[in-house]
Amino acid sequence: MDCSEVMKRITSHRGVKQLVIINKDGLPLKSIPEMEDLGESQARSLHELAGAARRMVRDVDPTDDLMFLRVCSKTDELLISPGKFA
Amino acid sequence: MDCSEVMKRITSHRGVKQLVIINKDGLPLKSIPEMEDLGESQARSLHELAGAARRMVRDVDPTDDLMFLRVCSKTDELLISPGKFA
Repeated sequence: MDCSEVMKRITSHRGVKQLVIINKDGLPLKSIPEMEDLGESQARSLHELAGAARRMVRDVDPTDDLMFLRVCSKTDELLISPGKFA
Repeated sequence: MDCSEVMKRITSHRGVKQLVIINKDGLPLKSIPEMEDLGESQARSLHELAGAARRMVRDVDPTDDLMFLRVCSKTDELLISPGKFA
């Protein structure tokens, strides 16, 4: 299954507004064009938040690592998965 | 139900390692003495992470607010609830 197929499968779930793949510099690489746009500045703050969460996890235990980050607001939910695509 | 009772109820759940109440300046106010200690620096980085998450939520929609933050690592899970105690 290639990247676009995985993205289509995820965004087919009800309520998903956007899916963005962000590179290690915080730049958005790929998203779903017909869905709500997530600007570069928001992609960068997402990236910074994941970085801060990773530093905090390693602060507590240097051998540990961040697996997932869920940010719940009054209206939305952001799911951040700091993975590595081959 | 007062604060200590709520804290006892939460920490009675299996797997809970610590519960910390942190003030708006990032200083730990109250925790469970007999449980694993969370140092001041970790309390401050938790506080900063919650602040970064709140800024990001408001970046996307200024009328929105952070309700909950879940940080999943390989070994632990941090649940951060930015509430206001009366």
